[in-house]
Amino acid sequence: MSTVPHDIDTPEIMVDRDVLQRNISRMAEAVAAKGIALRPHAKTHKIPEIAALQLAAGAVGLTVATIGEAEVFAEHGVEDLFIAYPLWVGPRQAERLRRLAERARIAVGTDSAEAARAMGAALGDAAGTLDVLVEVDSGHHRSGVAPARAVAVARAAADAGLRVAGVFTFPGHSYAPGMPTEAAHQEQQALAAAAALLADAGFEATRVSGGSTPSALLTEPGATTEVRPGVYVFGDAQQLELGRCARGDIALTIAATVTSRHEGDGTTPRRIVLDAGTKVVGGGRPAWATGFGRLMDFPDARITALSEHHATVVFPDGADLPALGERVRVIPNHVCVAVNLVDEVAVVSGGEVVDRWRVAARGRNS
Amino acid sequence: MSTVPHDIDTPEIMVDRDVLQRNISRMAEAVAAKGIALRPHAKTHKIPEIAALQLAAGAVGLTVATIGEAEVFAEHGVEDLFIAYPLWVGPRQAERLRRLAERARIAVGTDSAEAARAMGAALGDAAGTLDVLVEVDSGHHRSGVAPARAVAVARAAADAGLRVAGVFTFPGHSYAPGMPTEAAHQEQQALAAAAALLADAGFEATRVSGGSTPSALLTEPGATTEVRPGVYVFGDAQQLELGRCARGDIALTIAATVTSRHEGDGTTPRRIVLDAGTKVVGGGRPAWATGFGRLMDFPDARITALSEHHATVVFPDGADLPALGERVRVIPNHVCVAVNLVDEVAVVSGGEVVDRWRVAARGRNS
Repeated sequence: MSTVPHDIDTPEIMVDRDVLQRNISRMAEAVAAKGIALRPHAKTHKIPEIAALQLAAGAVGLTVATIGEAEVFAEHGVEDLFIAYPLWVGPRQAERLRRLAERARIAVGTDSAEAARAMGAALGDAAGTLDVLVEVDSGHHRSGVAPARAVAVARAAADAGLRVAGVFTFPGHSYAPGMPTEAAHQEQQALAAAAALLADAGFEATRVSGGSTPSALLTEPGATTEVRPGVYVFGDAQQLELGRCARGDIALTIAATVTSRHEGDGTTPRRIVLDAGTKVVGGGRPAWATGFGRLMDFPDARITALSEHHATVVFPDGADLPALGERVRVIPNHVCVAVNLVDEVAVVSGGEVVDRWRVAARGRNS
Repeated sequence: MSTVPHDIDTPEIMVDRDVLQRNISRMAEAVAAKGIALRPHAKTHKIPEIAALQLAAGAVGLTVATIGEAEVFAEHGVEDLFIAYPLWVGPRQAERLRRLAERARIAVGTDSAEAARAMGAALGDAAGTLDVLVEVDSGHHRSGVAPARAVAVARAAADAGLRVAGVFTFPGHSYAPGMPTEAAHQEQQALAAAAALLADAGFEATRVSGGSTPSALLTEPGATTEVRPGVYVFGDAQQLELGRCARGDIALTIAATVTSRHEGDGTTPRRIVLDAGTKVVGGGRPAWATGFGRLMDFPDARITALSEHHATVVFPDGADLPALGERVRVIPNHVCVAVNLVDEVAVVSGGEVVDRWRVAARGRNS
């Protein structure tokens, strides 16, 4: 029996509205119980309807990754946005930030004196209308400075006319087996250290922002004032394999059809091929993952390869292969990447398509 | 000195028109010299303007992966299209194929008696308006049947009212170091064997279709009547590292800005961060690749990690790190996936943006 509604043509992304709402409520309640603010990362969904559900559940505002995403959500009435990225701001970016700041409270990231000076110069008189958070490296070693260097960056930002509001970090190293607890600890230490140094230097650093989906629920009340999880709204195969969500918490799947089926002959694998490849599932596979995604209703199956329009799914001996033409649900490894591949998603409830939501901020990379 | 035109906001995909034209001409001439037809795979670019250049250079038609891609190129006047995929055709797909066949010569793939019967039944009277090619597995072990089983599939297709026109294969295992020559050999053997069996069984199998970008130029005149390379129009980091193209043949890059810069301190890597991540570069990394893409003007740099909006680029000791705010060009690992992430590309010639082309078939996954 297919769990894919009859009016879905595969491959198509489906969002289970009831599971989505439960995920949104659960995170909102858990974070509220800690006395921490929730500022979900909207790059995961890029969908104004989901942002509205998050705000209705108590989120203080949204996090986004780009000026373009901020523009989309501001157009849809979101009034408090944090572009959690160390922006390099030239004249065109400055003009867009100026216009954004006229209709929403805008915060941006920075992680160097050079970038802060460039941003201040480009913004000119408008520099003071933005909040700036200094990005701190808490162990992911991507962007961000060591906590000890946060004050130097903050001073440059203040000298450039920007309003220093606090610090932030992204514990990306929490996305690995056994790492969430350790990463959450490092995250809180780095944020607390940087915030204390800023306070000592006379900055009123009221925003101390952390939190990925794996680490958000591990954040303890203390220095951290807000968390920015994103993936929790949908869940994905990475979170499932990391043990950060259960199969029943997965709110987004990709409807796919069995287009090719091979019982295997000893030299070739026992497999099916689905019509969902990297162009709708997204292609990443961390080294620790068991494959390129999972199947919702076949826990023992493994996606061993993903081409652009083919998922090769291998089944263990003894397990029946789904029939040709059967429709199945694929759980992507990284849901943020999957959503960004489509213009709209089908919203499903009670086995029916009840709505379609536009991925309004899809492709807004700059 | 930046090679990114001043009116590009990063990240953005740029196509070098002159390199593109040279790649198109070179493949067309090389394949023509073998007496083989060229049917380029348009899933790589999804852009009608590039399809027109390929047809002007002598391509007999286009290959596409989905009915949706076929619809886009048919709307743009392409009259001969091969959907090189083992389609599962229900009533809605059949209706779309019927309409397509009214304005273009359409061929589709199949690799099972069940799928052929389903397609024939769904198409009804229109079944005879389509050509069907039986997909053969030449060693990639994805979709396709062993050559010995091609006749059984062809018979089922003919019994279902479909017009069996030949066989095809995709030597996906050619995308690995040392494999192009071996894979091209296996490809030709599998195609020749299947074509001979079909001929023995009384089928007039006039189309024998193979060829990936790594193997197309290795195809020898013989059984194979056409090749379907795609990536050759742009090149990418995979082809570069496989030795199938030179750096000067790369026609598509992603303009990116240095947003974070770290000299490294022994415990953290010496790196820059670019504002181009998986959402514009695409995320795949084969095990044999040196990273998640390359930089056009920094051959020694390696992209060691790719998040959604960050490329972490590590430089060897002694090499100068680009400055904050500097703009660089990223070569994606797999160009087909990158193009599918954006709605349009900037067309560059002589250091200027001379046009913008819409990625008209982007996201047409079904």
